[in-house]
Amino acid sequence: MRVLPMARPRWQMLAAEKRQHEMSKIPEDWLLSTKVVEEAKNRKAITGGYIEGLLDPDSRRITTLESMELLKSLGNGSLSAVQVVSAFSKRAAYAHQLGNYLLEIGFDVGLERAKQLDQYYQEHEKPIGPLHGLPVTLKDQFHIKGLETSMAFVGWIGTFEGQKGTGKERSFESELIRELYSLGAVPIGKAPETNNNIMGYAWNPHNQKLSTGGSSGGVIFSLRFYQRATKTSTGGSISMPASMNGFKGVANTGAGQMIMPTVAGLLGNSLPMLQLVFKSLLSTKPWLYDPYVVPIPYRSDQEYRPSNEKKPTFGLLMDDGTVTPHPPVTRALHIVERALKAEGYQVFDWDAPSVSETSAIHGPIARGDGTPDVWEALQLSGEPPVPQIQHLFDNGKLKEPMNLVEYEQVVLHMKDYRHRYQEYWESTVELTDTGRPIDAVIMPVSPYAAVQPDKFMYSAYSSSINVLDYTSITISVTFADEKVDIVGSSFEPLSEIDKKNMDAYDSHVTDGAPASIQLVGPMLSEERLLSLAQLLADALAKHRS
Amino acid sequence: MRVLPMARPRWQMLAAEKRQHEMSKIPEDWLLSTKVVEEAKNRKAITGGYIEGLLDPDSRRITTLESMELLKSLGNGSLSAVQVVSAFSKRAAYAHQLGNYLLEIGFDVGLERAKQLDQYYQEHEKPIGPLHGLPVTLKDQFHIKGLETSMAFVGWIGTFEGQKGTGKERSFESELIRELYSLGAVPIGKAPETNNNIMGYAWNPHNQKLSTGGSSGGVIFSLRFYQRATKTSTGGSISMPASMNGFKGVANTGAGQMIMPTVAGLLGNSLPMLQLVFKSLLSTKPWLYDPYVVPIPYRSDQEYRPSNEKKPTFGLLMDDGTVTPHPPVTRALHIVERALKAEGYQVFDWDAPSVSETSAIHGPIARGDGTPDVWEALQLSGEPPVPQIQHLFDNGKLKEPMNLVEYEQVVLHMKDYRHRYQEYWESTVELTDTGRPIDAVIMPVSPYAAVQPDKFMYSAYSSSINVLDYTSITISVTFADEKVDIVGSSFEPLSEIDKKNMDAYDSHVTDGAPASIQLVGPMLSEERLLSLAQLLADALAKHRS
Repeated sequence: MRVLPMARPRWQMLAAEKRQHEMSKIPEDWLLSTKVVEEAKNRKAITGGYIEGLLDPDSRRITTLESMELLKSLGNGSLSAVQVVSAFSKRAAYAHQLGNYLLEIGFDVGLERAKQLDQYYQEHEKPIGPLHGLPVTLKDQFHIKGLETSMAFVGWIGTFEGQKGTGKERSFESELIRELYSLGAVPIGKAPETNNNIMGYAWNPHNQKLSTGGSSGGVIFSLRFYQRATKTSTGGSISMPASMNGFKGVANTGAGQMIMPTVAGLLGNSLPMLQLVFKSLLSTKPWLYDPYVVPIPYRSDQEYRPSNEKKPTFGLLMDDGTVTPHPPVTRALHIVERALKAEGYQVFDWDAPSVSETSAIHGPIARGDGTPDVWEALQLSGEPPVPQIQHLFDNGKLKEPMNLVEYEQVVLHMKDYRHRYQEYWESTVELTDTGRPIDAVIMPVSPYAAVQPDKFMYSAYSSSINVLDYTSITISVTFADEKVDIVGSSFEPLSEIDKKNMDAYDSHVTDGAPASIQLVGPMLSEERLLSLAQLLADALAKHRS
Repeated sequence: MRVLPMARPRWQMLAAEKRQHEMSKIPEDWLLSTKVVEEAKNRKAITGGYIEGLLDPDSRRITTLESMELLKSLGNGSLSAVQVVSAFSKRAAYAHQLGNYLLEIGFDVGLERAKQLDQYYQEHEKPIGPLHGLPVTLKDQFHIKGLETSMAFVGWIGTFEGQKGTGKERSFESELIRELYSLGAVPIGKAPETNNNIMGYAWNPHNQKLSTGGSSGGVIFSLRFYQRATKTSTGGSISMPASMNGFKGVANTGAGQMIMPTVAGLLGNSLPMLQLVFKSLLSTKPWLYDPYVVPIPYRSDQEYRPSNEKKPTFGLLMDDGTVTPHPPVTRALHIVERALKAEGYQVFDWDAPSVSETSAIHGPIARGDGTPDVWEALQLSGEPPVPQIQHLFDNGKLKEPMNLVEYEQVVLHMKDYRHRYQEYWESTVELTDTGRPIDAVIMPVSPYAAVQPDKFMYSAYSSSINVLDYTSITISVTFADEKVDIVGSSFEPLSEIDKKNMDAYDSHVTDGAPASIQLVGPMLSEERLLSLAQLLADALAKHRS
């Protein structure tokens, strides 16, 4: 009896073709040797010095410039857009070869735009806009002319959001992309979710045994192969729910639920840069082109000004009463607390309605419909759901949608939670001596410094921000250190899940992972929160030295 | 065989008790004789001169003062709050006896507050706030201490939103009420929907054969027994969807749907007054107390200033391609067009995506859940639904809620409609020579100058505003006139429903009903739209004289 080799499913072939197609866009002289790639696989971290050691001196110099410095050089002409876009594209090409981080490679599209920008600069002797020549990457949800949008669904390859023959493939442009181009920014690629059937698993470049945690923008950030990334989130991870709630012309599963809309966030390695990008995007008046953007221009008067106001005060949430953060995160929270107190800022315990309550709200609203759009996208090619989204389906079958009346009960719960949370926040005016309630709250983004795959159990710290529709800025504080970040013998679990979650912590495996906190402000408070984040960053820098 | 008289159902007795209880709050010397009440029933109109003829000279003088004049007198102390509140309460008492317009009578509560205000004035020699002493009525959705909130559900009598023994009955206060009190306004009563089992049908005081059309704020307005009313609407009628989308502490059936939220509107008999109230409410920073209020303070710089800008331009929608307005409304639209053109304003045909499209959106979103909260409120007492809401149920039975996935398809339709509408609006920049798109659009509020009960067939003109979440100000232009408002022989119906709707028009019955139009602006454009409404009102006044 002969055993025939199993035919490889068609979707796997399509995925492989797609991977190869993207790889083929990397210029030959940017290809790394197999030896380097294999060597990198066995390293713990591939960030910083390691990847920079692979680069030529010019690319290294350009891609390690401080962000505002980089923009200044582009603005005064001492660096050309082609130089900058080439350097960042090369670094991105290297990173992609080490870890499959890009779903869409757009170096050629970026270079084309860079040439136009250089020509503009030559003709007009000035930059085209405040972001002239700045390379950016985006989540693969935004449509960019010349690139595909598959959201990593194999069935979307060669289509426009799953539909064939619309004529929009590779030619439609999302509103945000139009705005970024008009400001001078240069998209050079798009990133997928952490795990998907096209690119596989995106490991954490700080520690390749760990996950990138949620969607992948964060990775690219730490590899610094771009200066600005825009990501989207209904579930948290690193996000800054902005006034830019609109999402015109964007591929979006779950778009039918408007209760807790997808929000655009910004990732960057410098707060002044984040502020500049935010301000610049608002200067394009996006609300005129997208009915879901609130018409609020950038409000400088909301920024914290030491000369005008009493010192801001902060709330601190060490845990939510249900799940204790892993030791590196708890240490990060303490570092922030000490840094703020050393600078004379008052820090108060934060006793708002527990974020754990939002677990019962976020899931039903985000996924109560049974996510039929994800299902349909998978059916197009027959690919199976990756483990991270298997819970969306019932043994591979579509779940029944929630009853609309029960769904509305959840919405009422959310409204009530928002009311109570705001009421608490306003009540803190009695704790402070500023005449204002607490200005911002410091809390975990998640219980984890980057997590091991399959050990992600609790998301309420971040998803609560979506439920509240608040503003949040994530700040990387320190790195996990196996020597100090150990679960103390006095640890007493707050709940069943807390025990399970802490048991899953492995100080050795986690070593080196970045430990972050989030700074949280009320709805639509980006201007103020950015300035408070700067204050916090300054305090941390001073405290470290 | 003896036939026993049918026992009167208990809910009818409770409703009768409630009516009597409210009536008992009218002071004896404000009671009208049976003769007057009967006489009024046989009149066509009971507005203006008629009701004023019944009043004593002082009350007449005070309640006919121009609104801003009235506020000025209150502010400089030439009229006391007690004088003003008494006069308006008396006029309201008369109106109520003629037409059952109030569900909650709060003259005593108002008088109490008026006394406090007078005392404040005496002590501080200044008014307590910009609305010092101004009598207001509200829709019976807002909770006022000392008054009940039943939303005209018999089962809610003696409860807090249907629940017994909460301790909140007659003592809970809605956020908006707190704000109004803080500004100096004095609530004196609350009004129900047009028809309900407690008060019966509210006839149009301009023409008592006609409906008040939707909820009842409008009636009270034309009887002018208050200076300011606040009403709510998810369905249109007279409304000004404001930035004040929040509704904290407000009874609200349908609160579980957040896609197309209930909006607070203002009714008043003077545009400067509307503006003052809007501005004053925003000055209390309602967004600090209600997470559903967008944090935008009053923006004076958005008002139209003739000295700074080119003359604004207007769009004009005579019909939506599906239903032709009845002749009085068409005439009102022509009057507005002529008045604007006479003043040199450009008026363009408005060719946006048809408002008729929103019929397929508004109904499912507002009622796709089968309105179980209305159902439950009715079940509490066993009262039957009034004819106006029978369509919510299936032969008296609760309808199945829509499938959540299908519901989300409707939400996507809404999003798409909003995008297309905005795109059209922005495209009109090419029609004008102002460098701006058209500034505001004139369109019917409904096909009807007040409608005969049971002949209301089409609501898309107003419900489209809810679907778009735009700003709208309704302006009364003229009155139906049986001599001129006749369906021409050249009339050709646009559709089946247009024919039916026009066949139902009776020029004789409609005679005397107010014919209104709405002025529509983009989302959150209240400041600008109020100033454009003033411009329009000025043009109309000039045109009339």
